[in-house]
Amino acid sequence: MSNKRIVSGMRPTGKLHLGHFHGVLANWRELQEEYECFFFAADWHSLTTEYDNTGAILENIREMVLDWLAFGVDPAKSVIFRQSLVPQHAELNLILSMITPVSWLERNPTFKEMQDNLDAKDLSTFGFLGYPVLMAADIILYRAAKVPVGHDQLPHLEITREIARRFNYLYREVFPEPAALLTETPKVLGLDGRKMSKSYGNSIYLSETAEETSKKIMSMVTDTQRVRRSDPGEPDRCVAFNLHRLYVPDDERAEIVESCRGATIGCVDCKKILARHLVETLAPFRAKRVELAARPELVDEILAEGSDRAAREATVTMTDVRDAIRL
Amino acid sequence: MSNKRIVSGMRPTGKLHLGHFHGVLANWRELQEEYECFFFAADWHSLTTEYDNTGAILENIREMVLDWLAFGVDPAKSVIFRQSLVPQHAELNLILSMITPVSWLERNPTFKEMQDNLDAKDLSTFGFLGYPVLMAADIILYRAAKVPVGHDQLPHLEITREIARRFNYLYREVFPEPAALLTETPKVLGLDGRKMSKSYGNSIYLSETAEETSKKIMSMVTDTQRVRRSDPGEPDRCVAFNLHRLYVPDDERAEIVESCRGATIGCVDCKKILARHLVETLAPFRAKRVELAARPELVDEILAEGSDRAAREATVTMTDVRDAIRL
Ligand code: SF4
Ligand code: SF4
Repeated sequence: MSNKRIVSGMRPTGKLHLGHFHGVLANWRELQEEYECFFFAADWHSLTTEYDNTGAILENIREMVLDWLAFGVDPAKSVIFRQSLVPQHAELNLILSMITPVSWLERNPTFKEMQDNLDAKDLSTFGFLGYPVLMAADIILYRAAKVPVGHDQLPHLEITREIARRFNYLYREVFPEPAALLTETPKVLGLDGRKMSKSYGNSIYLSETAEETSKKIMSMVTDTQRVRRSDPGEPDRCVAFNLHRLYVPDDERAEIVESCRGATIGCVDCKKILARHLVETLAPFRAKRVELAARPELVDEILAEGSDRAAREATVTMTDVRDAIRL
Repeated sequence: MSNKRIVSGMRPTGKLHLGHFHGVLANWRELQEEYECFFFAADWHSLTTEYDNTGAILENIREMVLDWLAFGVDPAKSVIFRQSLVPQHAELNLILSMITPVSWLERNPTFKEMQDNLDAKDLSTFGFLGYPVLMAADIILYRAAKVPVGHDQLPHLEITREIARRFNYLYREVFPEPAALLTETPKVLGLDGRKMSKSYGNSIYLSETAEETSKKIMSMVTDTQRVRRSDPGEPDRCVAFNLHRLYVPDDERAEIVESCRGATIGCVDCKKILARHLVETLAPFRAKRVELAARPELVDEILAEGSDRAAREATVTMTDVRDAIRL
């Protein structure tokens, strides 16, 4: 049991965009330098909302993991695995379900929220309600000390901690209560100014070409109050500028702010600068992705090996779990 | 896939009594002559109601399976296994949970009934609500054609059939819908006239000695309206007589009815006759049980071997399941 262990999963929704990169991947990349990390493709979790649309799961896993690998998640440093290849997740999920009151799940704020957001679909399934139990199993199966979460995920992690506590109380001390590793991540806006999201069609993908990215940047919404080239603009109102903050060096960006407010630069030129920096920053990662994608067996091999390693850890925990329950 | 396959499980509550024998075991014994049977110790199911009292599960499994073996369930004919040794039950349970509406579970009549019967305990757990999902997994994991059930279990089996249908509809035809094999079993009354049940302390155990059984029979309630030896009795009102029906040969029983109604036999003598027949009938099985119990590794070995065989069947199904979901 390591107190430097971290577990984090991502649902395989396919190719990742800049929002995923800044929201999760950049953080994972740093964490693996300091912690023993378990990163997994949460394919069973996909079924909680996508049980009627599973045709693309395998392809989505592949694309997602290629993005992980190209953008710095390193199988030599971290255990990279696929949830459904480690059946102990299902076993621990079943056991934890027996000690988890339904009321804990019903009061989960994300439960109602997700149901509202996805109301076109019948999401009143037993598995959807039990999402936090599966998440608890995912985490405590590896006796993780910490879990990287955003503020919005804190209620979920609190249920995980409560379930771990309840298990320890009913049987014996088997699980550490995982602590939140709160991560501040920049909000990444999409081309239209809404949150970058695949479903909005406003995303810049890690895996697209430099040309595609440049074209998208040029179509990006700027300061909508700047109607003519001669009108002064305001970067704080400019959608594109949220990417300038992430990709344009400080000094150059300070100049842009001045030129924008003084109407001495046009939005087209300004976005060209952004596109150049963005494309340059992503170029080495994208080159690596092309290289990795040319090895068709690679992702499967890495996931198989990582899943074996995860299963070995999981087996140790489950032996303890069965022994504690006297099962 | 066999259309002669049957799956049936029993919760390990410990030593079995005559109620279990006539309600389940006698039936299993016959079924295995005609069907390919999978009989399992439902230890994960025990957790739905006994999660806070698990200390005796292993011992309960051992005692129960010794009763199975001594009273005719034959590992050479049937697959005898332990649910928690076949993790595919948990895996299929997780997958089925994703496609099962919560409303199907809430309308399950047994759900409310069990909650009422056991209201001293907090049974509003997620696992307790999901009991029918786990039961569905248990059955369809082996693509059973038939499930032996009593009338009271028909609603549960109907949920199993609905879940199988929904899976087949969402993905592709993987599971046959298991049919009910309705079994008429005699109602076995306990010493006090209530249903024979461990919790009432009114049971005659398969594993007890002839002396213990005889003593219990002599304490058994008879026709409470027959106050004096000289009063005529009525076998239809007599608690003991429900066992005469099962253990005393027809001609001898006909004589007893006459003698009872004519007050020419006393209850003590009448119950001595019952005790003798009961003890004689059980004797060879009990002798076998003593023999089997003297081999401490036997039950574990049979369960390990049966669970391996069950797991092989389960693996075939799960490969199909994953393929159908494209997972
Ligand atoms: S000049 Fe640049 S910062 Fe100013 S509104 Fe246009 S794109 Fe945005
Ligand atoms: S004589 Fe036998 S059948 Fe009649 S009441 Fe007594 S025990 Fe029952």
